[in-house]
Amino acid sequence: MYYIGVDLGGTSIKAGVVNTDGVILYKDKMPTKPERDSFFIIKDMASLITEIISHLNISIEEVLGIGIGSPGTPDVKSGVLLYSNNLNFENVSIREELSKYFDIPVYLDNDANVAALAESEVGASKNVDNSVLVTLGTGIGGGIIIDNKIYSGFNNAGSELGHMIIMQNGLQCSCGQKGCFEKYASASALVSQTIEAAKKNPGSLINTLVNFDYDMVNARTVFEAEKQNDETAKQVIRQYLEYLSTGIINIINILFPEYIVIGGGLGNEGENLLIPLRKIVNETAYTSHGIVPTKIVSAKMGNDAGIVGAAMLVKKNN
Amino acid sequence: MYYIGVDLGGTSIKAGVVNTDGVILYKDKMPTKPERDSFFIIKDMASLITEIISHLNISIEEVLGIGIGSPGTPDVKSGVLLYSNNLNFENVSIREELSKYFDIPVYLDNDANVAALAESEVGASKNVDNSVLVTLGTGIGGGIIIDNKIYSGFNNAGSELGHMIIMQNGLQCSCGQKGCFEKYASASALVSQTIEAAKKNPGSLINTLVNFDYDMVNARTVFEAEKQNDETAKQVIRQYLEYLSTGIINIINILFPEYIVIGGGLGNEGENLLIPLRKIVNETAYTSHGIVPTKIVSAKMGNDAGIVGAAMLVKKNN
Repeated sequence: MYYIGVDLGGTSIKAGVVNTDGVILYKDKMPTKPERDSFFIIKDMASLITEIISHLNISIEEVLGIGIGSPGTPDVKSGVLLYSNNLNFENVSIREELSKYFDIPVYLDNDANVAALAESEVGASKNVDNSVLVTLGTGIGGGIIIDNKIYSGFNNAGSELGHMIIMQNGLQCSCGQKGCFEKYASASALVSQTIEAAKKNPGSLINTLVNFDYDMVNARTVFEAEKQNDETAKQVIRQYLEYLSTGIINIINILFPEYIVIGGGLGNEGENLLIPLRKIVNETAYTSHGIVPTKIVSAKMGNDAGIVGAAMLVKKNN
Repeated sequence: MYYIGVDLGGTSIKAGVVNTDGVILYKDKMPTKPERDSFFIIKDMASLITEIISHLNISIEEVLGIGIGSPGTPDVKSGVLLYSNNLNFENVSIREELSKYFDIPVYLDNDANVAALAESEVGASKNVDNSVLVTLGTGIGGGIIIDNKIYSGFNNAGSELGHMIIMQNGLQCSCGQKGCFEKYASASALVSQTIEAAKKNPGSLINTLVNFDYDMVNARTVFEAEKQNDETAKQVIRQYLEYLSTGIINIINILFPEYIVIGGGLGNEGENLLIPLRKIVNETAYTSHGIVPTKIVSAKMGNDAGIVGAAMLVKKNN
């Protein structure tokens, strides 16, 4: 038997046929063209699903269900996407609409939750009951897995880890709050911190690496400069790790998951980032007497997290 | 059938016979004398249990089990109290020791978790699957209930809500971290904030209320001065509520429980505290489009939370 996993993004719709072990057997994608009415986007999604099933020469009867990971705020129970900034969807019943094409169950959840489920079922936190995925990208996203299930609060609006306040009255966040974790520890925040430090320190290698064109700075730049022993880069990373560790410590003190999985673009730095992060967390976190600490590891699922996690929604409901 | 609930504290051991609806039918207590060896403390606990059962003229066969809420870090699975500052217990198997006296199941959990369970089963968050208890006392304690069960992480060391960092590089906490929630929003923190403001503003009513004897300031003082329209008191409370709301907002953004229950000594201020707190939280918290907000309510169980919650440990295991 098979599952269909759909990663519905603002840029592309990706879909895959996934086996019961969480392995993608075949996948394909098409552009979302998010300015369109949801009717046409869901119609395309149905065509894509039909195409990947036909490609593998399997019948719809062999498919246990379709799982969809979407940006925004879904109502998991009803299969309605309440709202999504990236898609201009408002109160769209994806389940109902997609069920017009296929007579199999349709499950919907948030993309970050789905990615956390992928790591939990077949990725970095496999075989662990309780884990938290923290993605360091433009913002900070997250998914909480408790007792092997997605946990996102009674209204499915929780696990907004990026909007945890780590600095009372700190930097203004676009969400309306001040001092949010993602204003200090997202990949975008690291880029801002890198640019600011480079400008203050004209002799820093960071400037040379981007030829003084600060639009060229990305989250990797500071790590490249650090490898070449640039003092400014070292300071930026040290300060960034302080911010990152604060949010991680809070997750530990509140939830104490067995694993924290670090993903997103910046997560690709892997052990470069995790070795010093673990050190700070272990030295700083309030932990009780003789307690086994949370393990901090890199995400494994990469770009397949969306498809596999969405497919796992079907598995968890069977 | 009945449950026994034991509230094992640093000052007294309280025990009660609780019916299946969570009502205490009879309770009694004795001093803990915490300097003693655990053998004698557990022996006294057994005597107390025997006494309350005899008083009601019920037999041990009618008791489904004994639940114990203890300070410190218990290993819930093995029934061992790994460590407790208040009791000088280290790796004491309370379950094994108490089972020498009674041939019924013994369950152990942390006192804050047990109090959260009491609120969830029969108190302020009854009929709600997911809730968080936040106690504002000397420190800030907490218990997380997910799917009607205590959640405290894979090693039972989570839900240390008081040690969530809300101010990067803020006030030094005794736990080793800086900027912990409880350094800003516990009852003790409010007392410090009150004294500091009173000293800076000699004309404030706060000074008169305690006759300039700052040892007399308690968490209620500032509320008394506020009732009489003291400007300094208003400012202290306003600032305190900012701190308190930050921690509450973080709990919402991460866990989005249906209810947050405010308990502890300061929780007794009730609506005095909760009306302005709800206002700040509703205005500030990042919430998604059209989402039902978390309800913030006062704890109901008061001093019985320990006994009833401990008894509910038995219920949850049956």
